[in-house]
Amino acid sequence: MQRQKSTTSVLIVGNTLESADLRYVAGYRTSDPIVYAQVAGHGHLVVSAMDKAWAAQCAPGLTVWSPQDLTLSKAMRRRLSDWAFALLSKLGASRVQVPATFPLGVAQRLARRGVRLDVAAAGVFPQRRVKSADEVARIRQSQRAAVAGMRAAWALLRAAAPDARGMLMHNGAPLTGEQVRRAINVAAMAYDCVGGEPIVSCGEQSADPHGIGGGPLQAGEPIIIDIFPQHAFTGYCGDLTRTVCKGPPKPGLRAMHAAVAAAQRLALATVRAGVYGSTVHHVVQAEFERRGYKNEVVNGRPAGFIHSTGHGVGLEIHEAPSLGLRPDRLQAGAIVTVEPGLYYPGMGGVRIEDTVLVTRQGAELLVPCARGLVIA
Amino acid sequence: MQRQKSTTSVLIVGNTLESADLRYVAGYRTSDPIVYAQVAGHGHLVVSAMDKAWAAQCAPGLTVWSPQDLTLSKAMRRRLSDWAFALLSKLGASRVQVPATFPLGVAQRLARRGVRLDVAAAGVFPQRRVKSADEVARIRQSQRAAVAGMRAAWALLRAAAPDARGMLMHNGAPLTGEQVRRAINVAAMAYDCVGGEPIVSCGEQSADPHGIGGGPLQAGEPIIIDIFPQHAFTGYCGDLTRTVCKGPPKPGLRAMHAAVAAAQRLALATVRAGVYGSTVHHVVQAEFERRGYKNEVVNGRPAGFIHSTGHGVGLEIHEAPSLGLRPDRLQAGAIVTVEPGLYYPGMGGVRIEDTVLVTRQGAELLVPCARGLVIA
Repeated sequence: MQRQKSTTSVLIVGNTLESADLRYVAGYRTSDPIVYAQVAGHGHLVVSAMDKAWAAQCAPGLTVWSPQDLTLSKAMRRRLSDWAFALLSKLGASRVQVPATFPLGVAQRLARRGVRLDVAAAGVFPQRRVKSADEVARIRQSQRAAVAGMRAAWALLRAAAPDARGMLMHNGAPLTGEQVRRAINVAAMAYDCVGGEPIVSCGEQSADPHGIGGGPLQAGEPIIIDIFPQHAFTGYCGDLTRTVCKGPPKPGLRAMHAAVAAAQRLALATVRAGVYGSTVHHVVQAEFERRGYKNEVVNGRPAGFIHSTGHGVGLEIHEAPSLGLRPDRLQAGAIVTVEPGLYYPGMGGVRIEDTVLVTRQGAELLVPCARGLVIA
Repeated sequence: MQRQKSTTSVLIVGNTLESADLRYVAGYRTSDPIVYAQVAGHGHLVVSAMDKAWAAQCAPGLTVWSPQDLTLSKAMRRRLSDWAFALLSKLGASRVQVPATFPLGVAQRLARRGVRLDVAAAGVFPQRRVKSADEVARIRQSQRAAVAGMRAAWALLRAAAPDARGMLMHNGAPLTGEQVRRAINVAAMAYDCVGGEPIVSCGEQSADPHGIGGGPLQAGEPIIIDIFPQHAFTGYCGDLTRTVCKGPPKPGLRAMHAAVAAAQRLALATVRAGVYGSTVHHVVQAEFERRGYKNEVVNGRPAGFIHSTGHGVGLEIHEAPSLGLRPDRLQAGAIVTVEPGLYYPGMGGVRIEDTVLVTRQGAELLVPCARGLVIA
């Protein structure tokens, strides 16, 4: 875990499940609210007296206080804003940087007591964009869980066979997206990762990049499988997408898959420290245009390549930097997804996504995983 | 899902994974930020054009807008505050209630454009305290996952046997808290529930009510198992704790377990619509005092009955109402935990927790689960 020394004071309140910034500095997970302040380069936590020993053990580099240590009266021990105010007073800080997500209720109460809060436009920990060796290892571990989930999904599809109307059957019943999702989550759990809601969308469903899909799966249709497990203890995420098809693909699908695979190869070859994310995105756009895959609006729905090429991955599944329209320079040590996709209502969607480490030489795949379309 | 009609305007921004209020009204899960506004009793969502069809399908009672529908220019489509401002302008609302967790960054940008934000002290959806029949069914489903996890944990303990020094052995190796945790999570996953980080703490560890525990398990010592699964799709939680001991308990443990079980019985008999949560808490305190279990500070750590008696359970694992020091009246339809516990450094801890529905007649256990101490 990197903790950059800094003379700017920082204040964060909340719990480590909701605030990735808090998880980053505290290194422990709790659903109870806590306060973090960084003053003169040193970090402090305020946690309940009950949690103090546990927090101190998990965050050895921080000074851990309880409301009692801050000599707060019983009535003052309830409110997070009182904890924060008492800590800032003790540390002599009256002006702090806060994340844009800082809760308005606490902000108003602190402002009334004379604390000046400045929203940190680039986040309070911009160093989260560059991962330490420890963080890379943790993200790789979650990416292994994603690959294990993908293999579990493929195994189910391999074991299934289409009936006369092309519906995939398994053990005498239709194989559903829900069953595949459950197999993915059980496989991820063996890596202590929480699968959450992996996408298993088939046919027409797959034209909507964010619908999670469900119901019976069909032969010949694209099946998008997007897995983004989060480690239950470290909180770090992985992200992986493949598009597969059981049996011979329907007309057009093979070419669309080849286009996405080619765009991803070009994008991966472009990623390197110093390159802008937008440059990678333009490479993908150009390749799709060259192959005749246009962006259009079909029945009021956008179609074509309708999302960005990638995003950072860490304690949040979507974090900086971005590989999209805005220029955002990639630094060595960033971990990003590279995930071009094409979506056409009527036809369906294809997306291929890997998570890579940005180095000075290029993009290093965290965990390899086959990219073929057809499952026999 | 209950959606109370109201003439107060409400504004929420964020994503449904982080904001339970958003999950409550939108009924779908996304890690991408969205905007919800309720004006003149009708709810509106703003989501990306890509997610519009999906959101409309999941939230049929709401009007769903994309930034394009709000005729925002391309440059204005990026910021959530622009989405929110455009929607409020269209709906003619310039003053809105927001949750205390409303992000300060968005609040400041809206305030600069003349929108007045009032923090709703009791939350924007106080009706979340009372569950609909649908919600009760969903929480019960997650509670079933918790019971399944508990049974999986017990099965491992039953299969283990102590070595000469009392260390529990299973398949020739020490049985650890981590193994038990994994078995719990796999069992919960079969109910589509995410186990997260169940507590499996043994001996001295169990004296800290929030440490998650880990390492080899010992015969004769208290083992606290606290399971709080969240359903992957509905987002509703369950909550269950048992304290067990493999083989004959060490001196004092049986009496401590009996005291906690008795306190829980008395508390459960006290819960009923119209009763204050603090009344239930005082019943537990009185029973522990009567039996000679005092609150004290041992080596700077609080010991005894050092947490509240319970909390509401729903889309959040800890939500209103509270069964603690503050008076908070229980309404019929509330779902709360009843979880007295005793913690003494050196001795360890005992906690017994069930999740119950508050009715006019009393407390209805959502899912029964045996409370015995000893696992043979």
